[in-house]
Amino acid sequence: MSTELRNRLFQELDSLVLIDPHTHINALQPASTTLADILGYHYYTELAHSAGMPKADIEEEGIEPREKVRRLIQNLGPLDNTIQYSWFVEMAQQLLGYEHERIAPEDWATLYDLADSKMSSPTWETEVLEKSKLEAVFLTNDFDDPLEGFDTQRYIPCLRTDDLVFHLCNPTVRERLEKATNKSVTDADSLWTAIAQLFEHFKAKNAKACAISLPPDFAPTKVSPGRANTAIEALLSKGIDAEASHKRAAASYVFWTLAEHCAEFQLPFDLMIGVNRGVYSSGVFQGQDLYDSRVSLIQYQELFNAFPTVTFPISVLASVTNQELTSYAWIFPNVVTNGHWWYSNTPTFIEHDAASRLEAVPRTKQIGYYSDMYKLEFALPKFAMYKRILAKVLAERFVIDRSWSEEQAVAFGTQVLRGNVEEIFGLQDSPEGQSLDVVPSFDAPEQALEASDVIEGDEPPPAAGFPDELTD
Amino acid sequence: MSTELRNRLFQELDSLVLIDPHTHINALQPASTTLADILGYHYYTELAHSAGMPKADIEEEGIEPREKVRRLIQNLGPLDNTIQYSWFVEMAQQLLGYEHERIAPEDWATLYDLADSKMSSPTWETEVLEKSKLEAVFLTNDFDDPLEGFDTQRYIPCLRTDDLVFHLCNPTVRERLEKATNKSVTDADSLWTAIAQLFEHFKAKNAKACAISLPPDFAPTKVSPGRANTAIEALLSKGIDAEASHKRAAASYVFWTLAEHCAEFQLPFDLMIGVNRGVYSSGVFQGQDLYDSRVSLIQYQELFNAFPTVTFPISVLASVTNQELTSYAWIFPNVVTNGHWWYSNTPTFIEHDAASRLEAVPRTKQIGYYSDMYKLEFALPKFAMYKRILAKVLAERFVIDRSWSEEQAVAFGTQVLRGNVEEIFGLQDSPEGQSLDVVPSFDAPEQALEASDVIEGDEPPPAAGFPDELTD
Amino acid sequence: MSTELRNRLFQELDSLVLIDPHTHINALQPASTTLADILGYHYYTELAHSAGMPKADIEEEGIEPREKVRRLIQNLGPLDNTIQYSWFVEMAQQLLGYEHERIAPEDWATLYDLADSKMSSPTWETEVLEKSKLEAVFLTNDFDDPLEGFDTQRYIPCLRTDDLVFHLCNPTVRERLEKATNKSVTDADSLWTAIAQLFEHFKAKNAKACAISLPPDFAPTKVSPGRANTAIEALLSKGIDAEASHKRAAASYVFWTLAEHCAEFQLPFDLMIGVNRGVYSSGVFQGQDLYDSRVSLIQYQELFNAFPTVTFPISVLASVTNQELTSYAWIFPNVVTNGHWWYSNTPTFIEHDAASRLEAVPRTKQIGYYSDMYKLEFALPKFAMYKRILAKVLAERFVIDRSWSEEQAVAFGTQVLRGNVEEIFGLQDSPEGQSLDVVPSFDAPEQALEASDVIEGDEPPPAAGFPDELTD
Repeated sequence: MSTELRNRLFQELDSLVLIDPHTHINALQPASTTLADILGYHYYTELAHSAGMPKADIEEEGIEPREKVRRLIQNLGPLDNTIQYSWFVEMAQQLLGYEHERIAPEDWATLYDLADSKMSSPTWETEVLEKSKLEAVFLTNDFDDPLEGFDTQRYIPCLRTDDLVFHLCNPTVRERLEKATNKSVTDADSLWTAIAQLFEHFKAKNAKACAISLPPDFAPTKVSPGRANTAIEALLSKGIDAEASHKRAAASYVFWTLAEHCAEFQLPFDLMIGVNRGVYSSGVFQGQDLYDSRVSLIQYQELFNAFPTVTFPISVLASVTNQELTSYAWIFPNVVTNGHWWYSNTPTFIEHDAASRLEAVPRTKQIGYYSDMYKLEFALPKFAMYKRILAKVLAERFVIDRSWSEEQAVAFGTQVLRGNVEEIFGLQDSPEGQSLDVVPSFDAPEQALEASDVIEGDEPPPAAGFPDELTD
Repeated sequence: MSTELRNRLFQELDSLVLIDPHTHINALQPASTTLADILGYHYYTELAHSAGMPKADIEEEGIEPREKVRRLIQNLGPLDNTIQYSWFVEMAQQLLGYEHERIAPEDWATLYDLADSKMSSPTWETEVLEKSKLEAVFLTNDFDDPLEGFDTQRYIPCLRTDDLVFHLCNPTVRERLEKATNKSVTDADSLWTAIAQLFEHFKAKNAKACAISLPPDFAPTKVSPGRANTAIEALLSKGIDAEASHKRAAASYVFWTLAEHCAEFQLPFDLMIGVNRGVYSSGVFQGQDLYDSRVSLIQYQELFNAFPTVTFPISVLASVTNQELTSYAWIFPNVVTNGHWWYSNTPTFIEHDAASRLEAVPRTKQIGYYSDMYKLEFALPKFAMYKRILAKVLAERFVIDRSWSEEQAVAFGTQVLRGNVEEIFGLQDSPEGQSLDVVPSFDAPEQALEASDVIEGDEPPPAAGFPDELTD
Repeated sequence: MSTELRNRLFQELDSLVLIDPHTHINALQPASTTLADILGYHYYTELAHSAGMPKADIEEEGIEPREKVRRLIQNLGPLDNTIQYSWFVEMAQQLLGYEHERIAPEDWATLYDLADSKMSSPTWETEVLEKSKLEAVFLTNDFDDPLEGFDTQRYIPCLRTDDLVFHLCNPTVRERLEKATNKSVTDADSLWTAIAQLFEHFKAKNAKACAISLPPDFAPTKVSPGRANTAIEALLSKGIDAEASHKRAAASYVFWTLAEHCAEFQLPFDLMIGVNRGVYSSGVFQGQDLYDSRVSLIQYQELFNAFPTVTFPISVLASVTNQELTSYAWIFPNVVTNGHWWYSNTPTFIEHDAASRLEAVPRTKQIGYYSDMYKLEFALPKFAMYKRILAKVLAERFVIDRSWSEEQAVAFGTQVLRGNVEEIFGLQDSPEGQSLDVVPSFDAPEQALEASDVIEGDEPPPAAGFPDELTD
């Protein structure tokens, strides 16, 4: 019974049109052009390398996409148990029309050519978005990104701020900042003003979030203007050789400044907490980062108290931090749970973490999932994985354990998958006045009933209908 | 099959008469007088506030109970997914006769009046205890509580000691202590003697436990008499402005003194480990505390070794500490697992934590659950939640995975729910010589067989029968 | 369906002949001689003591095995819920022919005599190995073990190095080292050379691993030759009174030296991370150790980077460290997950930890299980526990959730149970040139198909066949 119930719930959730609230898509080249774009995703290169494939074989300079794909597919055998491998197969099946459950090494050329024929179509991007039922995706933009040349309603800008907080000591970063803002940065005040200008630029381009990833030992605090000036001065004069204490103070100052601007510009501030960069220094590209799971949200106590009007959608890298996230979101009005990040984005951790959030955090304060993808083709299998787990948790822990109706379960799943993304990031308030808010929210019982109508109706609900512009 | 099995086990466990080993009940006013007492429970106010309800609306001075209920019910929609909301509904259904699965906002007045008519009955307290199958509940008493005006067999005193350990620097606390003991406190020795007198008072009033909640960074150690005197002196002279080092030393001294008295007076010492107070300083009443999950029981190594005759029933705030608790209870004869506390008192964490204890800690050393309630009405839904999870774990991990009989599973569940509470807190040894020990313990195979008789017999077993005095 | 599916998978996995990659077997007396050898296992003495049995009753000097067994069996009642108790019962049933599900206290003499008659047979050792389907077991040898008098193909030596790293300050340890190597140890260089000689000795005796258990605060780093000399000198001159800083530096130096030799001699280095020794100082023998779960693999970052050619099979004591282990094994080519250690070797933790590894770590990099046993009789019930959980995870998370075929699931289970043990420890490369590599590895699809043949074939597969020498 439970399996059939799960399938019914999954089918409903799978019919929704979604907005992906965090990706690394390049809006100027959102879809893959060859299968090498897919297999070059760090999940495959790092796992293949971990299983024994030399880095030199993967990252050989000037290697042709076709040869790269050949080599990687030869090395997927030891990974064929992983959920990451299953994303690849599901993508190949659903988007490329591949028909097998495992990729046979000798199939590499067939698959490459299949992808080639699909991806070379001028409608490939739209086709992927449609099949993936994706209406829009959030980007991760460098602070000096001009944000031009793409539709910001479909590819929603997000101001990524790691460089500003952690690499301001690097002269290149300061130069990029000065160039982007056409302002000279000499002290705390001018830095504050330059950052304000970035927010203005992003906000004008429909940015809906500010975001940053943070190491486990980061504990932001408000620093005095005097201390900030001393620290900024040291960074400007000594660059990457500045003392660690100055780097720390400057990081706190910039971080705090970002939060102030988020308050001013009414932007949620996505915090992605817990990553140590470059732990495996000889690893492949993007396959070098790990973590120390000894981190606590208590490190953000001062921040959460200081900025009651800023919403903080929070992702944690380690599942052992998930209970703290659940508890902090249960207590702090401005803390929201956000997806399942990276090393916690595998089924066992998702299931445990999602279950504990779904039963203890207000339903309006949970962003179910984001894909974190670099290429559009990955939204489909990643969201499908999440939706299967969500259906499992809703089936087992709500319908069976707590006697919810299937309609209530689907309404709840719909809210964490779609409704909350719109509400929390204010997607109704687009600068051009165009509303994306076509999905009912499900806070109140009457709305839950509306959601239940969705299930039995023959017509696709408004939320599930695909916007015209995407089908063009 | 598994669902039916779970239900059968639940029915058996649900027929037991229980003693609740930790609550915050006011023995002089144990039941609610209006629905505002129920909805004023911090779980509802803090979740409603977290979901957006202004604190001022919740805690407006002089607000009438009826208006408070109206406002809160209007704001329950965003919480209707939570397990805490389900407690409220189950309470309303089972105790008030409410008939719906969700509380419609427009139903607020009906529900308020329903509660009013029930709660105004002079037999309401007894009715709640009977329907909840509660024979007795432990209290949480201030150290200067006179413990008078109530039946200490039904409302069992427990000496709560947070103030003594962590707030002795506050002159008010010292004054309360001197007033309660009629003794002057001037140094470590006189403090020791005053505390002894508290124990005599509590013990004479049928106290069955000493208890304290502890922050994550607390690591008690034995301090020398000289150091203790210096620290106490600093606290008495400087009050809350005393140096942190003196506060720490005094806290360790008082804590150690409490453990010495627990040994002397043969009282278990409940340790509730891991809470940081006031993390969200603008939160609602009792909705400001959170935690840093980076805590270890290794911090209590010296204590557990120094007091082999004191039983320490231990609760941990974070599920990530549960494995340590399981392991320490498996090794230390004086460490006992105690319930599922606060932020770990939600189904996903209970299930994981209970399962790991049930399979690795001696069956005699596990206290299954306490309600932590402030008003009697919450024992029923909270214990029901636990019993459902206990039935699930026993069904899946013992009957199915390990081929236990249902009788054995029920006997084990009975022991952690009821038998161990009596054994561990010595409820047989009441000062008036009246024994509460009507439940067989299930250590030995023969006793397990007796428990199995319970299941098939027509007559309620002795343990399940309701004491006469409560039915009067 | 799920239960039947689990049973089918278990039956297949249970038919495999295994190699146990970590035990504490004494090769000169591998099997028990009386039931006291079984019940003297620390799991029973520590749990019985924890449940109230006085240490003096357990460890009375000169106590006869028969009396010891009588006493312990009288005290098993409070443990009969534990998985450890279930190991004992399953062992008694499968190896001794005991027929009940619980050990009645009055049965002690019958059971003792039953064991006596079995264990006194000259073929008992072989009988246990056969019934347990064990082809070989790894040992844990002191560094000065002569490794003589036993078949090193069946009992595979492993160089245990705790003494060298953490107790070199103890003059006895140095004397043992000098005696074993016939070399004088006076400084870092001569220590390095002496350790090299130990590796030569072990390697010549078919050693297949170096191993060590490590406290949670250990964070190895490369120390300079000068610092190493100063530290070694301090240890040699001051013994156990040497300063902590010198002890730490010496420990790092010796540890690093071991890793260098593992690289040179191509031996995997088993790291067992997280134990604090002697936490409960009055505990029974081997029942005094616990842990602080606040440990991170980031402490080993420098090591993993410095020794890319050394394979590190890693065990973690606490389940909260398992996600880090999973992630580090996913990124670092030289990190391998290794079994479920001690306090994490109970079903709830195994299930959670195994599930997360199976879905995210390359299939070639996971060692499923080791028994950690002191006597051969425990491999059977401990591996059976693991195989049941493995079957459960494969059934629920691979066959049901991910639509794997049963054949694929069994092939994967076979690889983590057997194939990887051979591959990772290089069991093909025995010094006598005798190959143990009779199990196909299952990396490639064709090989997975071979494994599926196993399931439907009438003939036992090569891997499942019992080597002739063991049936003699």
